[in-house]
Amino acid sequence: MSDNFTDNIKERYFDWAATALADEDILHDALEKSLADGANPSSVHGAGLDARHAFESARARCAAALGVKPENVIFTSGGTESDQIPILALLRRPQKGSILISAIEHPAVSAQAELMKHCGWRVITVPCNSDGIVTPEAVIARIEDDTALVCIMAVNNETGAIQPVYEIADAMTAHCRGKRRPKFHVDAVQAAGKIPFELSYPGIDTAAISAHKLCGPRGIGILYMKDRFEPFLKGGGQENGMRSGTENLFGALALASCLERYYTRGRLGEQGAGSAGESAGNMFSQEMRRTAHFIEKLKELPCCTLVPESRNAVDERFAPGVVQASFANIPGEVMVRALSEKGFYISTGSACSARKSQRPVLAAMGIKGEKAANAVRFSFSSHSTDEGVKKLFEAVKEIAGRFNG
Amino acid sequence: MSDNFTDNIKERYFDWAATALADEDILHDALEKSLADGANPSSVHGAGLDARHAFESARARCAAALGVKPENVIFTSGGTESDQIPILALLRRPQKGSILISAIEHPAVSAQAELMKHCGWRVITVPCNSDGIVTPEAVIARIEDDTALVCIMAVNNETGAIQPVYEIADAMTAHCRGKRRPKFHVDAVQAAGKIPFELSYPGIDTAAISAHKLCGPRGIGILYMKDRFEPFLKGGGQENGMRSGTENLFGALALASCLERYYTRGRLGEQGAGSAGESAGNMFSQEMRRTAHFIEKLKELPCCTLVPESRNAVDERFAPGVVQASFANIPGEVMVRALSEKGFYISTGSACSARKSQRPVLAAMGIKGEKAANAVRFSFSSHSTDEGVKKLFEAVKEIAGRFNG
Repeated sequence: MSDNFTDNIKERYFDWAATALADEDILHDALEKSLADGANPSSVHGAGLDARHAFESARARCAAALGVKPENVIFTSGGTESDQIPILALLRRPQKGSILISAIEHPAVSAQAELMKHCGWRVITVPCNSDGIVTPEAVIARIEDDTALVCIMAVNNETGAIQPVYEIADAMTAHCRGKRRPKFHVDAVQAAGKIPFELSYPGIDTAAISAHKLCGPRGIGILYMKDRFEPFLKGGGQENGMRSGTENLFGALALASCLERYYTRGRLGEQGAGSAGESAGNMFSQEMRRTAHFIEKLKELPCCTLVPESRNAVDERFAPGVVQASFANIPGEVMVRALSEKGFYISTGSACSARKSQRPVLAAMGIKGEKAANAVRFSFSSHSTDEGVKKLFEAVKEIAGRFNG
Repeated sequence: MSDNFTDNIKERYFDWAATALADEDILHDALEKSLADGANPSSVHGAGLDARHAFESARARCAAALGVKPENVIFTSGGTESDQIPILALLRRPQKGSILISAIEHPAVSAQAELMKHCGWRVITVPCNSDGIVTPEAVIARIEDDTALVCIMAVNNETGAIQPVYEIADAMTAHCRGKRRPKFHVDAVQAAGKIPFELSYPGIDTAAISAHKLCGPRGIGILYMKDRFEPFLKGGGQENGMRSGTENLFGALALASCLERYYTRGRLGEQGAGSAGESAGNMFSQEMRRTAHFIEKLKELPCCTLVPESRNAVDERFAPGVVQASFANIPGEVMVRALSEKGFYISTGSACSARKSQRPVLAAMGIKGEKAANAVRFSFSSHSTDEGVKKLFEAVKEIAGRFNG
């Protein structure tokens, strides 16, 4: 490894799906601006009005980058809260019913939905197929008259499997014509800025976005909200009553800049400028090509199985930022540690589950035993380089060889 | 006004209870450190372990400053969430019951408690006296067999009235001897670092602290938790399952530094060093003296009524950081705007309620009509200076004179 390479952690970091290493320039700039407007945006004196103006400008920039209206953008503390708000809002309803969630949801959805059982709600799990994809048919088949909310993530955080959320939205609309349609919530945390994805697609009622997956700070996210609803979490009434707590100007400004720099390339058909002045389409194609090359190399290793096995080098069913693979005779944690010793950083499943032994997403795909226990996740970003990915593969190959001599 | 004075907003800012202008050095330092440890603290590779180490060091520093154990410190997104978590946890209980809250709680408590009615819980309001103080007797008189939670704030955000939370805790313990004792939650957002206050006082089960009231960033706070309980908000399982969401290292580091610099002086009998090397006791005495002087001057104005009227210049029943006063013939918003035009920043009630016309805290004290509508809040910090407070009073006097010619 060259010294330059060793110095640049962004080239050796392949855990972007756990958290994206922050964009230092964006965070520095946002901090300076937020310090300059340090009053409470809800105060009505001059300094408060200045802070309010700065805060609403950040919202308008986020909305423009996302292709939605400012009133659709609710700032939250992150992806988890953005997932919790629509679920908890069900507690305002006079009648209890059921919540449909996919078998591969992030715990921000699945664990929160599970708790709703304490309040008389039923939780119905929609299975995925062996490729880790939830079909519209599987969703529709489980909608009941009392189904109030359907939660299907846009991109799975462990496998990168892109879920057909547009088709699910369409199918729900068709199926529920003439009767009450459940709300549709999309956890877009791993999709936003990573694949072409339109928040404003008809039939998506709410969606969750997290700044720290987009090179922004922790502690800030967005709840996209097509139409206002009555929330169950309340307090001082900020964010038009949808999310209380003193407004986080630093976070909002940084998120706006991240969406402008890192998200636009993920919008459908958009040709916005990337950070290096490259077109959005170019950056996305480069990532696709880089991942395809990495998968091709993995497929050459006899001890390696892609997860799912059906994944092709070029495969539009998967986000290019995430590759899950299992290596014979090497428990996932062992691969993670061995790569870490060589200076490369990856995860087993999600970071959230890194310290737990269960792998519910893999179990839902029918993957169990050694293959599940040995699965690891490589995740990439626009900061990943061909050189870095090549060195990562060499390191993986060397470690795999040690255990499969 | 000298140019120097005009330049320094901290000397002209008297809205510290709404938000404390951030400590630039602390935020800059925390940002650099968090960028250096940019991985996800829940990732198990080397970079993740480094981030975990940094994060747990921040927790240990917070705990030491607060005089509690690290496992008592749960990082949250701020004061609002720290208030919501103990209330929402009631939804895990198989039996519904009642929640006691004071009539002067912040909406993070009162609005959230109100919503619990949708889930079958009763909310009982404990009145305050005309000085805005909730007595232990008033609390005890309303505890019923099914009371599961009592929420009494430590310092009221509008009047600065210090609530007798130690005495309430003691009275609850004595009253409930031999039967199940309700949990006791203390919103300490306006107390932490502002008055001597021991979180670990026996009988306090949970407490809320917000970083941005202590010159820290928005989007981070602490839930003090004496003993673990089962939360109703769930997700990835961070914070030992008590608060999910990727760990906010920047926020935690900044909050730790703020607690070390700004909180210690608020601890009972503590003689820690202030930011300028002054002893904690000295800084606190200076603030008491400064406020006493301001109140004395206000009392000289015939058109001014302190809220409550019984407030003395030196008065241990009130936090020195907050003074509420009402001026004849000047609606609160008018005073706020007139002072703003002169470069001084204050609020009417809380910032949260700045855009609403109700003043529930004043109503609970029996203050209504013009006196309530004309009430404004002056709030101070260790950054306030004698010179600044003197100029603030001169400005107030000039404006008051205009309307009372």
